[in-house]
Amino acid sequence: MLKPGATIGILGGGQLARMLALAGARIGLKSHVYSPVADDPAFDVCSAHTKADFLDEAALAAFAESVDVVTYEFENVPARTAEVLEAHRPVRPNPKILALTQDRLIEKQFVQSLGVATAPFAEALDAESLARAVAQLGRPSILKTRRFGYDGKGQTKIVEGVDLADALKDLGNAPCILEGFVPFAKEVSVVAARGLDGEFRAYDVCENVHEHHILATTTAPAAISDSTAQTAIDIARRIAEGAGYVGVIAAEMFVVRDGRGERLVVNEIAPRVHNSGHWTLDGAVTSQFEQHMRAIAGMPLGSARRHGKQVVMRNLIGADVDKWAEILAQDGACLHLYGKKAARPGRKMGHVTRVTP
Amino acid sequence: MLKPGATIGILGGGQLARMLALAGARIGLKSHVYSPVADDPAFDVCSAHTKADFLDEAALAAFAESVDVVTYEFENVPARTAEVLEAHRPVRPNPKILALTQDRLIEKQFVQSLGVATAPFAEALDAESLARAVAQLGRPSILKTRRFGYDGKGQTKIVEGVDLADALKDLGNAPCILEGFVPFAKEVSVVAARGLDGEFRAYDVCENVHEHHILATTTAPAAISDSTAQTAIDIARRIAEGAGYVGVIAAEMFVVRDGRGERLVVNEIAPRVHNSGHWTLDGAVTSQFEQHMRAIAGMPLGSARRHGKQVVMRNLIGADVDKWAEILAQDGACLHLYGKKAARPGRKMGHVTRVTP
Repeated sequence: MLKPGATIGILGGGQLARMLALAGARIGLKSHVYSPVADDPAFDVCSAHTKADFLDEAALAAFAESVDVVTYEFENVPARTAEVLEAHRPVRPNPKILALTQDRLIEKQFVQSLGVATAPFAEALDAESLARAVAQLGRPSILKTRRFGYDGKGQTKIVEGVDLADALKDLGNAPCILEGFVPFAKEVSVVAARGLDGEFRAYDVCENVHEHHILATTTAPAAISDSTAQTAIDIARRIAEGAGYVGVIAAEMFVVRDGRGERLVVNEIAPRVHNSGHWTLDGAVTSQFEQHMRAIAGMPLGSARRHGKQVVMRNLIGADVDKWAEILAQDGACLHLYGKKAARPGRKMGHVTRVTP
Repeated sequence: MLKPGATIGILGGGQLARMLALAGARIGLKSHVYSPVADDPAFDVCSAHTKADFLDEAALAAFAESVDVVTYEFENVPARTAEVLEAHRPVRPNPKILALTQDRLIEKQFVQSLGVATAPFAEALDAESLARAVAQLGRPSILKTRRFGYDGKGQTKIVEGVDLADALKDLGNAPCILEGFVPFAKEVSVVAARGLDGEFRAYDVCENVHEHHILATTTAPAAISDSTAQTAIDIARRIAEGAGYVGVIAAEMFVVRDGRGERLVVNEIAPRVHNSGHWTLDGAVTSQFEQHMRAIAGMPLGSARRHGKQVVMRNLIGADVDKWAEILAQDGACLHLYGKKAARPGRKMGHVTRVTP
């Protein structure tokens, strides 16, 4: 177990790294943030920072030597980066999860290997295999690049009339998978933590609404049956245990309602703190950020108990952030801003949480 | 009104400055911390810091020029320091409050001028005036230095048999006041904020227990009658308004119970965030630290609503901090550590908060 005063190395300097560093400071942990981007949001709140490329091996080695454990705020950490860091210090979560979650095909195969349902899928490496996949899964279906997709980027819908070669070209002819359409009633996620000792604690299952492919609101708890909620948490636990995971993990799932009741289909795994867990900063005893820092430091996990009857988190995307003064004046609104300078469209600038007492 | 991205200058680099900087970062404010002490707790969480003496006028001027507003975490800011800073940037709270609160005599006169009760007091500049004061106020009574007292330092009890010249000598023959003994049932405090626009918001009156003259626990709400609680908040409002105050202020009061019921006697004013307000970090919608940053930035004040039924904060003094691992493992305990290296006896190392749902 690391002691207070230890230094956590964080790869990436965005809002997740910023909130991790702030949460670490609460419990006496220092943060050293590593990012190639000058003026990244996390640089303002850490005890040390390195501005260098993720493939700068000398900088990576010096960074690792200056910290006690390394973690990351994003899943697209290059394999070589993780390898260099691991030669010096423990990297948590274990980088094996990166290989699993960087590739949608491998991720889905892993989830299915645990006996957990995913959307039906098939590989689509070229026009020919895409044609076979469409014949199998039908239209509408969704073509996604295997790697580097987020917030709706790297995907396109295959509806009637779409030319398959054009669709592949739209995605840069990158290796893809085709996912069958899941007629879901709602999307939920489980944000949970697994400690170094295997202890597992999940927050309430929460419900997510997306607008323009970007998370707009998260509401905790989700309006689903108790047994579905318990199943969702069990799935997250199986994923975390199956991957030998340490830290906070998020599992996004679709809730499908049919004659047989509610069932769950895993959509995506994020091996990190997650936007759908931001409500825990104001709405839970221990935030997801502190929970992650505790887990990777080998400390006991904190209580994941929710405050109040309901917690709603709304993202402030792009120009939404201009309403900051109005939000500050609203009774019971908790505003969080990430310190980003330019409010470009689609950019996550902050969020606001409201706890119903 | 300052905008997110603005920089708050904080004089002092201890735990209060640290928690102010962390709270400012939540709402997108940067902090520049000024302290003469290397490795001060706040240096780890701010976007800039200056290590220089409080009387280094060149460093003060450069600091002030680099920020948008200046605040402070302690009331013993030298008058000249405030004067130099004010020539460059607004200093909030207005440094006039420093003159009031740095001197126990002037502070008590100010409180009485508002029609608010204090302990009976008399000046004690030398053995002769102390003898007159003791004749007037009786024994037991408490001799306190007019300036620079905290956590029981700079005071001594005048009981039967105490030699008055020795008592004065114990306090370095500094100018003192003698305070009459107040047979109080409990000590409470009001932590409240006044905005730049005059808006006033108070947290629940809380109850404080001291051990060895240092705050041990704070419990919110205090177990006092509703009307006493309302009176306590009204007193804090009169003090804040009377001083033209902007920011978070704390007023410590004694609750005296006699045949006529409960009455309040103001003991001390702190022109800053206060240890008895630390519970608000986990136990209120807006923490005292964010509230202070909002107020001095000219932003709207946040909700001071309490979470849960009761909130208890316990200070971790000296070796208490060695129990950090045990506390982390306790269900519902929120641990805060200040990042101090040496756990000297009597030193505030952190605190732990428990919210009863």
